[in-house]
Parts: sequence; C-alpha cells; structure tokens
Amino acid sequence: MTAPFSLVLLDADDTLWENEVYFRAAEARLGEILEAWADRDEVAERLLATERNNIPLYGFGAKAFVLSMLETALEVSDHHIGQAAVTEIISLGKSILSQPVEFLEDVELVVHELAQRWPIVVVTKGDLIHQEAKIMQSGLAHLFQSIEIVAEKDTATFTRICNRHGVASDDIVMVGNSVRSDIIPVLNLGGFAVHVPYEHAWAFEIADLPQHPRLREARGFADVPAILAELSAIGGQKPRRSDRARR
Amino acid sequence: MTAPFSLVLLDADDTLWENEVYFRAAEARLGEILEAWADRDEVAERLLATERNNIPLYGFGAKAFVLSMLETALEVSDHHIGQAAVTEIISLGKSILSQPVEFLEDVELVVHELAQRWPIVVVTKGDLIHQEAKIMQSGLAHLFQSIEIVAEKDTATFTRICNRHGVASDDIVMVGNSVRSDIIPVLNLGGFAVHVPYEHAWAFEIADLPQHPRLREARGFADVPAILAELSAIGGQKPRRSDRARR
Repeated sequence: MTAPFSLVLLDADDTLWENEVYFRAAEARLGEILEAWADRDEVAERLLATERNNIPLYGFGAKAFVLSMLETALEVSDHHIGQAAVTEIISLGKSILSQPVEFLEDVELVVHELAQRWPIVVVTKGDLIHQEAKIMQSGLAHLFQSIEIVAEKDTATFTRICNRHGVASDDIVMVGNSVRSDIIPVLNLGGFAVHVPYEHAWAFEIADLPQHPRLREARGFADVPAILAELSAIGGQKPRRSDRARR
Repeated sequence: MTAPFSLVLLDADDTLWENEVYFRAAEARLGEILEAWADRDEVAERLLATERNNIPLYGFGAKAFVLSMLETALEVSDHHIGQAAVTEIISLGKSILSQPVEFLEDVELVVHELAQRWPIVVVTKGDLIHQEAKIMQSGLAHLFQSIEIVAEKDTATFTRICNRHGVASDDIVMVGNSVRSDIIPVLNLGGFAVHVPYEHAWAFEIADLPQHPRLREARGFADVPAILAELSAIGGQKPRRSDRARR
C-alpha cells in the first residue's frame, strides 16, 4: 500500500493527451499563408509575441490562439491577406477545437492504476468548454475526484485548489509536462512534482527543469506510479494529518 | 435572523454588473460595418444564428462572440469586407474584454448585506479569464465562499456545485437575470430562485418566466434580501439538515 499524498493532481493537455501538436500544425499552415510576407520563423516569432501580449485579455486556449493568429496575419501582411485567408484561419481554430482526444502512451492504463491508490484532481487551463469536452470524451472523468479548469496555473491557483479540497499544499503531488505551470508553483508551495516531458512543448511554457529534492523526472507516463510510490515514502517521513477518506 | 438556505448562488453578468450592453454596442457597430450588404436586423439575426451554431465549439463569452462576429461579417459581405473591418471587429472584442466593472443599481450594498446572512457562491459562464478579472476588479471577491465559472448552466452543473459544497439541491437559492440559465435548472432540481430582470437580455437567454411556488420576481437587486427572507421561511417548513458553519 502506498500512501500518503492526500491528492494527486494531473495536468491534462500534453500530459494525458495530445494538444500542442494541433496548435503547431495550425501555426505551420499560418506560415504558408504568410510566406509572401515573412519566413516561417519570423511568423512563429511574431505569433508568439502577439500571444504573450494578449494573454492578460484572452488567457489560454484555442479561441485566444485563433484571435492571435488573425492579428498576426493582419500585421505581418500589412493588411494584405485576403478574406479567404481570414476564413481559413478561423477554420484552423475550429479544427483544433474539434480534434478527438488522442491519448499519449500508457495514459489510460496508468490513470486507472493511479485512481485506485489516490484521489485524483485534474488541473488544466485553456478554453472552459474545450477542456470539459475533452475530459468527457476521454472516458476517464469518473476516475477524477474533481476537474479544475483554471485561467492560470500559479501558486494562487494551487493554493485555492488545496483549500477547496481541504488538503495542505505539502500533501499534494502534481504530475505534468510544463515546468513553468505544473512544476515550479507546486514546488514553491512545498508540494511534490513529477515532470513528464513532452516533445512538442509550446515556447511559452518552456523553462529549465530545476534540481529539487521533491521533484522527479519521468521518462514517460508509465513511470509515474513507481515515482509516486517513492515520493510518497519521502512525504511520509514528515508529520502529517491522517489520510483522508477517498471521495 | 433569517435562515436556512445552505447556499445563496448569485449570477454575475447582468445581475451584479453590466455585460450585455457591451455586446449589444459591438453588434450595433457590426451593423454599421455591414450596412452596404444587409440591414441591421438581418445582421443581428445572422449573428445570433452563427453564435448558436458555434456554442458547442466556442461556448460563451467575448472571444466566442468576436469569432462569431467575424464569421458573420465574412458571410454577410460575401467575403467583401475589408481588412480594416476585420481589424476593427477584433478590437471590438478587446474592448468588451477591457471594460471596467460597472455595478448595477444597489448591488454593492446588497451583496455585503447578503454575505452577512448566507454563504454566497457566484455561478457565472463565459471566458474564464474575463470572469475572474471582473470578480477581482469588483472588490467583492472576499464576500464569496467560492466562484464557479462554468461552461453551461444546466441541471448537471448545479448538481455538481451542490455536491462540491456538500449541500442538497433543495437547500439552495439562485439569484439571476436569465430565466433559461439561472432560474429553470435550479427550480427543476428542487431549489429556489429569484429572478432579477435585466433590460438588455441577450435573445439566446430569453425564456418565459414560469409560475412556480419556489420562484419570486424582484423589481431590482434591492428587493433580494427581503425575498430571500420570505423564501427561506418557506424552505424552513420542510425537514432539513442543521445549518452549516459559515466558510
């Protein structure tokens, strides 16, 4: 029997299922649309700058992305792209929002295994309706104690989630692919973290993986149960409240 | 001392503060942009049809609205609107997202009054980041036990909120302006509801106000405390759990 994390938090996009690949495919198509005005690297750079600039107003997700693609296309082409291009960019966004859930390797089996040992909360950011749709389509929703779709993953957000579930922040472990959003804020709160690397990370999310006694790097999702068992043994060495009842 | 609702749920947009007026102002401007191709009523009708059609993919909120405005403009003009119009429509969306919070009459005072008597949960739909920003800007966030930003307000959503807060659905009262989203699902679950009419309702949200023994119509937000006191007396006649501790 492994214990004593009160809560295992899982990221969803690019940890449980593909997401960023669809955004990168749309970006590649945007590069083709704009090739008369700029090379692809410049388009990618200007799109990222526009996205960063729009985060305070738009937040994250496919609708924010398509609006930033449109803005980038108008600027890069100096307002010379045609209406057909505007229509196509809107369609690129709809196509991202319509992608069926494609699990990453070993995820389905391993999430079932984790759910037998720990209460699981999914913590994900992006479009509310899109995130809900993917979680429903995944067929895994019944394994999750709750689903937290948040505007930003920072220490304030993780504190709120801990409070909502009545657990201490040093009593949780977060499993995810984004060093910036999944790993650093949880370590800063005293929690544990498992980094599951993902090959197509969005430039915005990239940060150096710190060295930290409460952090482990998985090779893939299949490693997660063994790593959690090992980390929970460390966690168990400090005084903590008695285990909470499962859901 | 009034009792015994376990939870008072409050809608936010168009119940606590202005929202729909900004969308209607943008729609009026879209009508002007498209006046060479269609009259304003037709633009409004086609925009509403596009929005309805896009709800499953886009959900609610200003980003969904601006994407539907763009799609409508391209269709109504048969792809003849200029790039300047596309840019302006994107700006209309940003302008909605940047509006400062403008309270409806009596709201600030009355929400403080309600919070002294009942635990309050805000239940709102739309863009996650925009809703969070408005709640933070309102200066009322500390009065709310929690803030539930949801993709849709239906019986499933209200059931989830009740479960999350450990209250029975016949133990809640919802206060809001939308008959479709705030009133009907809560009545269907056995809860109580107070309709606070709003003059600029979005066509999508309009539904006939039913006659119902657990529903009251307020003339304005100032009526809400007295109506809740009266309704809670009705609620108190049925057997119920003891009052829960405040937050």
